[in-house]
Amino acid sequence: MIINMLPGASEEQIQHVMERIKECGFTPHIIRGAERTVIGAVGNSDRRSEVEALQAAPGVEAVVAIAHPFKLVSRQLRPGGTVVEVRGVRIGGGEPAVMAGPCSVESREQILETARAVRAAGAHILRGGAYKPRTSPYDFQGLGVEALEFLKQAREETGLPVVTEVMSTDDVDLVSEYADMLQVGARNMQNFPLLRCLAKAQRPILLKRGPSATIKEWLLAAEYLLAGGNPQVVLCERGIKTFETETRNTLDLAAIALAKELSHLPVIADPSHGTGRRSLIPAMSRAALAAGADGLMIEVHPCPERALSDGPQSLDLAGFAALMSTLDAGHRHLTVR
Amino acid sequence: MIINMLPGASEEQIQHVMERIKECGFTPHIIRGAERTVIGAVGNSDRRSEVEALQAAPGVEAVVAIAHPFKLVSRQLRPGGTVVEVRGVRIGGGEPAVMAGPCSVESREQILETARAVRAAGAHILRGGAYKPRTSPYDFQGLGVEALEFLKQAREETGLPVVTEVMSTDDVDLVSEYADMLQVGARNMQNFPLLRCLAKAQRPILLKRGPSATIKEWLLAAEYLLAGGNPQVVLCERGIKTFETETRNTLDLAAIALAKELSHLPVIADPSHGTGRRSLIPAMSRAALAAGADGLMIEVHPCPERALSDGPQSLDLAGFAALMSTLDAGHRHLTVR
Amino acid sequence: MIINMLPGASEEQIQHVMERIKECGFTPHIIRGAERTVIGAVGNSDRRSEVEALQAAPGVEAVVAIAHPFKLVSRQLRPGGTVVEVRGVRIGGGEPAVMAGPCSVESREQILETARAVRAAGAHILRGGAYKPRTSPYDFQGLGVEALEFLKQAREETGLPVVTEVMSTDDVDLVSEYADMLQVGARNMQNFPLLRCLAKAQRPILLKRGPSATIKEWLLAAEYLLAGGNPQVVLCERGIKTFETETRNTLDLAAIALAKELSHLPVIADPSHGTGRRSLIPAMSRAALAAGADGLMIEVHPCPERALSDGPQSLDLAGFAALMSTLDAGHRHLTVR
Amino acid sequence: MIINMLPGASEEQIQHVMERIKECGFTPHIIRGAERTVIGAVGNSDRRSEVEALQAAPGVEAVVAIAHPFKLVSRQLRPGGTVVEVRGVRIGGGEPAVMAGPCSVESREQILETARAVRAAGAHILRGGAYKPRTSPYDFQGLGVEALEFLKQAREETGLPVVTEVMSTDDVDLVSEYADMLQVGARNMQNFPLLRCLAKAQRPILLKRGPSATIKEWLLAAEYLLAGGNPQVVLCERGIKTFETETRNTLDLAAIALAKELSHLPVIADPSHGTGRRSLIPAMSRAALAAGADGLMIEVHPCPERALSDGPQSLDLAGFAALMSTLDAGHRHLTVR
Repeated sequence: MIINMLPGASEEQIQHVMERIKECGFTPHIIRGAERTVIGAVGNSDRRSEVEALQAAPGVEAVVAIAHPFKLVSRQLRPGGTVVEVRGVRIGGGEPAVMAGPCSVESREQILETARAVRAAGAHILRGGAYKPRTSPYDFQGLGVEALEFLKQAREETGLPVVTEVMSTDDVDLVSEYADMLQVGARNMQNFPLLRCLAKAQRPILLKRGPSATIKEWLLAAEYLLAGGNPQVVLCERGIKTFETETRNTLDLAAIALAKELSHLPVIADPSHGTGRRSLIPAMSRAALAAGADGLMIEVHPCPERALSDGPQSLDLAGFAALMSTLDAGHRHLTVR
Repeated sequence: MIINMLPGASEEQIQHVMERIKECGFTPHIIRGAERTVIGAVGNSDRRSEVEALQAAPGVEAVVAIAHPFKLVSRQLRPGGTVVEVRGVRIGGGEPAVMAGPCSVESREQILETARAVRAAGAHILRGGAYKPRTSPYDFQGLGVEALEFLKQAREETGLPVVTEVMSTDDVDLVSEYADMLQVGARNMQNFPLLRCLAKAQRPILLKRGPSATIKEWLLAAEYLLAGGNPQVVLCERGIKTFETETRNTLDLAAIALAKELSHLPVIADPSHGTGRRSLIPAMSRAALAAGADGLMIEVHPCPERALSDGPQSLDLAGFAALMSTLDAGHRHLTVR
Repeated sequence: MIINMLPGASEEQIQHVMERIKECGFTPHIIRGAERTVIGAVGNSDRRSEVEALQAAPGVEAVVAIAHPFKLVSRQLRPGGTVVEVRGVRIGGGEPAVMAGPCSVESREQILETARAVRAAGAHILRGGAYKPRTSPYDFQGLGVEALEFLKQAREETGLPVVTEVMSTDDVDLVSEYADMLQVGARNMQNFPLLRCLAKAQRPILLKRGPSATIKEWLLAAEYLLAGGNPQVVLCERGIKTFETETRNTLDLAAIALAKELSHLPVIADPSHGTGRRSLIPAMSRAALAAGADGLMIEVHPCPERALSDGPQSLDLAGFAALMSTLDAGHRHLTVR
Repeated sequence: MIINMLPGASEEQIQHVMERIKECGFTPHIIRGAERTVIGAVGNSDRRSEVEALQAAPGVEAVVAIAHPFKLVSRQLRPGGTVVEVRGVRIGGGEPAVMAGPCSVESREQILETARAVRAAGAHILRGGAYKPRTSPYDFQGLGVEALEFLKQAREETGLPVVTEVMSTDDVDLVSEYADMLQVGARNMQNFPLLRCLAKAQRPILLKRGPSATIKEWLLAAEYLLAGGNPQVVLCERGIKTFETETRNTLDLAAIALAKELSHLPVIADPSHGTGRRSLIPAMSRAALAAGADGLMIEVHPCPERALSDGPQSLDLAGFAALMSTLDAGHRHLTVR
């Protein structure tokens, strides 16, 4: 860490900072500049946060962290990258994995029809929400365990593994019985009790980036999972909140390329939430793969205009099949560089 | 709702939308313009979300909601405003209520010393974190139940009611035993299972605005609490994420004035998280009260440079006393308009 | 336009709005709902802004524009799309056009060496700054007319057309003598006197999106150029300002797909400014083309660590050649759908 | 500056950076940590930007600037603060200065009526736009020199000094003949040719913060004015672009407190543009003064619903008088701390 003293910091203030650095187990290195003094804290110690707190000490302008704050998710640890397996489907390293299905499971017929269609079109994993985080308490909140049952039937019929969101620690065991992969929704990216609980789950996790989470905060949320014992984590970029209102969110594809540079975890893209507009899904799916994404998550509904949630950002069955055929023809190969 | 058809929408598409509006229990009103057709859906029906889904129907450009989506929190329902009582301290309507204390409870001595000092300076409620949501799993995560015990002792000694964050549905009963007001942290503003659980709690709730939550999303989160049975809700503006990096967040004081215009709930400000810089807390405290805030939440620590969290945005004991004296002298009166 | 009255609006207020709509040359259509009244203003009149001003009338909650505010840039006008020619290089419709070169022209040798190298690697247009908009007055401000002279020599030697930024109406004539395409920098996207002046210039314009401009504001800036008489406009997405700090800007590739859906103008991407990180340029170049971009603008410098501006986001000569070869091998073809 | 080497940086890369630092006139100080090496560049040299460019050198992760990049605007230079005089009205240091008037000058009657009313209510300076930066080319663009003439007449009648926006270097001389203070609009904050031209003007400048400008970028824009010879600069916070759409911009009052901490220049607030909603202007005016603002700029129109621009964020004459009386009664005194 670098402790940047204020221009007029007194010698006493400088000495105080030096002392505290030593107390915390680091070695201080002082650089006296023309205008100000800068002190480096060198070494390994688990009292790093105490040095960071010196930002509040008299005469200190700022404490700048030099090292990245994450460890287990860091690319240096596994330069070759991680492959996460979801019931035989490999995410990371090779051909992109496509997860598709409705925002919400609405009925047995709806999810079965969708599952058959997305499987026929080439999807690898079925998505569908049983527990829905909705902005308004008056909106459809999901069918719960009934939906889980329908998802199970869809897997049995199509063979597609199932990914679904879990919103509460109370539901982790139940959802784990039905689903092959557990999704942490964007609003829960920093729900730390949930992350700690999922770190003990025997299922791979799909960790969506929060709408206001920096790439570092996202990777640190993944660090909670790995540090807690679950190395099977896939990251999912789904758009961040910005001033632009024509799209529901701003899909940050550079974040995919950068997350893959910084971390060994696979990263996929969700162009449905990322744009909120059906017409943009094909272009952004291709772009995400070209940016290096290891897969896609796409909302598909047999009749989007009757969807109980997210219709405007769902492809219909024919639209999804059309998209998949363009991926086959071109960009899919390209990602195997 | 207004359904805005695309310029080239066909008569068949228009009729389809009209039919669906009727099916959902609304009356359609059509306006045929020079370039495009617009259809209003009038009436009361609980199938509003189905009309919204028409955004995904062929020929539709957008569905625009006209009415505000919240009901129980809306100012029209209680034009005089709500007063929330926390163990005898009234929030809303009159003199601003000041909540003060450390980010984290770190020891019995620390919380007792702080409680005595903030009480002497004129604070009304003691804050202190027992369970801490931390970006990194390697940072101090709070003392948990031990901290709750210390907070209780501080209340017994000083008489100050206690507010503390609850992060998980698992902890609601336990924390309710100790605390007089339960805080929903910014990261949990849309943790809907937690909101549903707190709607059943017998404690007033302090609902922080999420760092990327619009004012409407914030009010809808409060709507979850009221709709679930808990009318004792205080809103807290604590800054939103923007491109500005000199401050930790951007404290959105207009959101306070607007939330009070739209809703009857009391609203307070947290200038500590809102700025992340100790030096800005006094000015922003005064500004928040001038904007109409019903109170303040301020981080105070006996020795900020040794704080286990949030030292740079904590006042020390003398600094807090100095701030309170300026509030007494001036702006506090002003808020009694 | 839709005029949304407040729930408690009086009959008198409603009548007043109806009157004003008629005065402005539109026909009012009233829809009386359960809770509130909505009035549509139908027809064609050039007094649209007066109806918009009714937002300030008593009893009015909001005036919602239905039609898009741009006309000449709109896709409906030229469904087939526009091709802009820059000294024989076609932008739009076919193979992507690549513009490459240093942020600033620093010397004759530097620009000649770069021009030769990017030409050999397959670039179509040479970029280079003569007048530099710099955040600090103490930073290098560009060589001015000397740089223009060097750019001309580079064109003579390599045959590459030249694009360079013009910052002031005073420089438009001079720069037009030297350059084949005039760039409006991101900070000048809403410099309306400059846009009006460039609308009269006999050169195609490269219009960068402002760092806080919505897609609509960007298209309206282009509308200034077309309305003023210059139809030769290429849009350039170069990233927007968001809370994310790991990248210099957030490259908004969905804005490219959406701008092409809304407008007939060609759109290119600038992954150098869009990310600020050299390592991300290749992935984001491929992603931009996959998203439908009609070209790329990439900063290239013979020795980025000695660049007088933007070194960290510049490829060196070998890096650019390597990128171009991957585009040749794959994504370039893909864009010819 | 601190040069932060990558964890695996080679000894050769480290030596190269040390050499370059020396070549640029600084003294390198090396700190070898457990994981990585950090190099400080100490001293005074005007080749600072060359050291910053080392961010592009092999083995370098980042170059971190320690010192603030601005000089002449910095608070250290004039701890007592600057007072700017506009035809006898003092801005800074004492009682807040209030600038009021219509967004656009629309007619002689309109500006005269407004001038008389705002003067009677206690305003100190008259505002009014002659040249209007409008998002759409089809919106009212201002009356130009005719408006300047009307403003002059309003000054002659009321004695109020006049502030008006200048958009182009071509207009600086003309506008200077009529106006007492020249406004740089938010969209032009980084129009450097305009700033350079205004640095030579014999008028005080009102420099609005750009909608996506950081506080540092804002102060550096002011630095252009001071470095070019004009020390008479007043800063104006007018809101930044964020994801919140209920308000037109997010008024960043902490930026006022922080700008005054970092700089000696006076800072005022514009709650009209800052919120876009008339109902929020009074609360935000009081809040801005409480945050330490040296004045206010408020849009006032005799009949906002007929305003040619910005009606929804304009007070009418009675509303302005009412606001001024509350400022008199209370907050105005408070700012004289």
